[in-house]
Amino acid sequence: MTDAAVDYHPMWAELGLDLPTHDALLGAVGSMYADAYLTQTDRPEGMSYLDFVVSEVHGLRIKELHDFRAAGGKVVGSFCLYVPEELIRAAGGWSVGLCAGAEFGFEQVERIMPRNTCALIKAFMGFRLTRVCPYIAESDLVVGETTCDGKKKAYELLADLQSVHVMELPQMKRPQDVAFFRQELVELRERLEALTGRPVTAESLKQAIAEVNDKRRALQRIAAARAATPAPISGKDALLATQVAFYDDVPRYTQMMNALADELDARVAAGRGAAPATAKRVLITGTPMALPNWKLHDIIEKAGGIVVGEEMCTGSRYYDKLVDDSAETVDDLMDAIAAKYMDINCACFTPNQGRIDDILRMARELNADGIIDYALNFCALYAAESFTVEKAAQAESIPILKIETDYSAEDLGQLSTRVEAFLEML
Amino acid sequence: MTDAAVDYHPMWAELGLDLPTHDALLGAVGSMYADAYLTQTDRPEGMSYLDFVVSEVHGLRIKELHDFRAAGGKVVGSFCLYVPEELIRAAGGWSVGLCAGAEFGFEQVERIMPRNTCALIKAFMGFRLTRVCPYIAESDLVVGETTCDGKKKAYELLADLQSVHVMELPQMKRPQDVAFFRQELVELRERLEALTGRPVTAESLKQAIAEVNDKRRALQRIAAARAATPAPISGKDALLATQVAFYDDVPRYTQMMNALADELDARVAAGRGAAPATAKRVLITGTPMALPNWKLHDIIEKAGGIVVGEEMCTGSRYYDKLVDDSAETVDDLMDAIAAKYMDINCACFTPNQGRIDDILRMARELNADGIIDYALNFCALYAAESFTVEKAAQAESIPILKIETDYSAEDLGQLSTRVEAFLEML
Repeated sequence: MTDAAVDYHPMWAELGLDLPTHDALLGAVGSMYADAYLTQTDRPEGMSYLDFVVSEVHGLRIKELHDFRAAGGKVVGSFCLYVPEELIRAAGGWSVGLCAGAEFGFEQVERIMPRNTCALIKAFMGFRLTRVCPYIAESDLVVGETTCDGKKKAYELLADLQSVHVMELPQMKRPQDVAFFRQELVELRERLEALTGRPVTAESLKQAIAEVNDKRRALQRIAAARAATPAPISGKDALLATQVAFYDDVPRYTQMMNALADELDARVAAGRGAAPATAKRVLITGTPMALPNWKLHDIIEKAGGIVVGEEMCTGSRYYDKLVDDSAETVDDLMDAIAAKYMDINCACFTPNQGRIDDILRMARELNADGIIDYALNFCALYAAESFTVEKAAQAESIPILKIETDYSAEDLGQLSTRVEAFLEML
Repeated sequence: MTDAAVDYHPMWAELGLDLPTHDALLGAVGSMYADAYLTQTDRPEGMSYLDFVVSEVHGLRIKELHDFRAAGGKVVGSFCLYVPEELIRAAGGWSVGLCAGAEFGFEQVERIMPRNTCALIKAFMGFRLTRVCPYIAESDLVVGETTCDGKKKAYELLADLQSVHVMELPQMKRPQDVAFFRQELVELRERLEALTGRPVTAESLKQAIAEVNDKRRALQRIAAARAATPAPISGKDALLATQVAFYDDVPRYTQMMNALADELDARVAAGRGAAPATAKRVLITGTPMALPNWKLHDIIEKAGGIVVGEEMCTGSRYYDKLVDDSAETVDDLMDAIAAKYMDINCACFTPNQGRIDDILRMARELNADGIIDYALNFCALYAAESFTVEKAAQAESIPILKIETDYSAEDLGQLSTRVEAFLEML
């Protein structure tokens, strides 16, 4: 897409990245991507945009952040759905997800953090310690949350290295919890306003809500198209669309995803699939899959199945609910934001029946033949809920397979065998 | 202490315990106790009370609970310091700790809960599933809390089997967190009042606060005596005193512990120790040790060291702070309870610098030669803080050893070797 390759090394050097290690990382991710994504046949043409974004994920996009900051803009990094992009944008900032999807620097991480920590947390700290994440390097502020024991403690360590603001997420969903979370949002807003020097107004907040809602609507359209048989897009490609939503420029991304959704609608009308109509359809639920973690999708789809939905933070939890933008004051809009975010069914809440309901509903709506319940090793919350998920699926006679894994390639053979056996059984 | 052995089997049968399994449990705990405790020489005479309590922990004490309930009393079980005994007593109930200190029923537990769950949580569920804990069988209500990911999810499962009330514990200690916790205490109070049918009055609350403060003062006296060289009581015996505090009748226990403290003061004055003055003095910090988990203390003291303090929930976190009982209204007393409990430095809080300060202060005050930082396997919170604890100890040139273990005897040899090497190095 670019006429001549741009050399981003001077920019990365300016960001303090460890250049040889960073080159090695990009090389590895490039090969992983080629093997997982570019080997697919008959992909929607709209995926070429996401191919491009991935090829420039540490290049052009970082250049955009870099230029934005050079012009006085502020970038806010986060790892979690509960950090509202709407507030960051309304204060004039840009929101980015941070690197957390690959095994990097674990040896250094394990010197300051327990080995028995999930790969996602180890990865974000590993990327930071080995200085290979340009997103965290471009972040003027990292907003953390208290969603799980591991992240809660990891932010304490990160705060020694970066400017960090931790929001306290309640653990239940009663009215007093929503009120508490709303107050956390007010504190976050004030912190963001101080950072950017721009007050959040009703107008800026309404506009930010509308923009982020539009992004989520585009993803809802892509998700809805996957209900068709044959599914018009691979699970891997759809997952990538959600992963990129955390990084990309919002209006541009929304436009490109709506174009992709248009194409998917046409493919559905034409009965054109990313896999044969006979391919077994799998719903995945569980721990989020941060870019470039496509491991499970790749295994399933190379085994002849197709992933038709993700009940996860890099999936339906990200896009299936919108913020009500009908209010006219900052206070009322803050209420709407608090209500929407507290309606996400993360396993950090107790009880969390809403997630079970979501899984069963999605399995029905997406005509899933089976569910794969995915947890990263040592993710205590999703591992614990896996027993409830299994019971609920069995009660509805939906076959279910539990997978616990990490980012390494060591168990690929074993997982492939298990997934193949599961698909055959469906 | 009893003239004739009483047969409690009819009572245990009435409670629905699994009698053969329960007999096996009592036999095993009895042997463990004999091996760890009764092999000690020159123990304070006051320990005979605790020997008796342990010998009757599923007998006479359960009979007392049983009789109390038969007369209309209500028993409330819990697993955590953050459940205020003061409120339970003020509503006319009795508070008991629940069985969680031995490996029992883990095979059954792992059918409904991840294998990678800490031994304490697995144990409480294992005791419940195998029906060998008379305390939970006598509990009219179990009060849970959201202190860690594992317990938060475990209470969801327990709620299928028992009446459970979960209190939400905040994760920070700002004024809004204290206010939030205070409201949780109000909800708990209302739940307890509904259970017992007795309203909490300023008078009943003041009395309960005074009684529980007196209990904590007695334990403070025992703790203070341990600063002497030689230490007048073994760590094992002192740990047992704290463990029993969760189960025993409050005024009786307080009286007996004050008698024990008097004796310890006399021993200190006479220079009489539970170990030679040359024994290396160890402060233990970390995950709570529920009765009958004396594993680490036993290893250290059989290796010739002496444990002089426990910065843990079964240690200083339990007794080192009192509730201010000077207020005259229920509302003001509730403020005081909230303030005291939110001042406990559990690793569930972020940040948790107070715990580091406590550890260093205790090491100084108790003249510790070294610190052993103890975490149950898969206790993410204490394992994460262990890196901070280690750094803080090293900065003060206090030798520190990190131990991660569980309730099994499998690693006894390896742990003994490590502890012996550590003591030699001190």
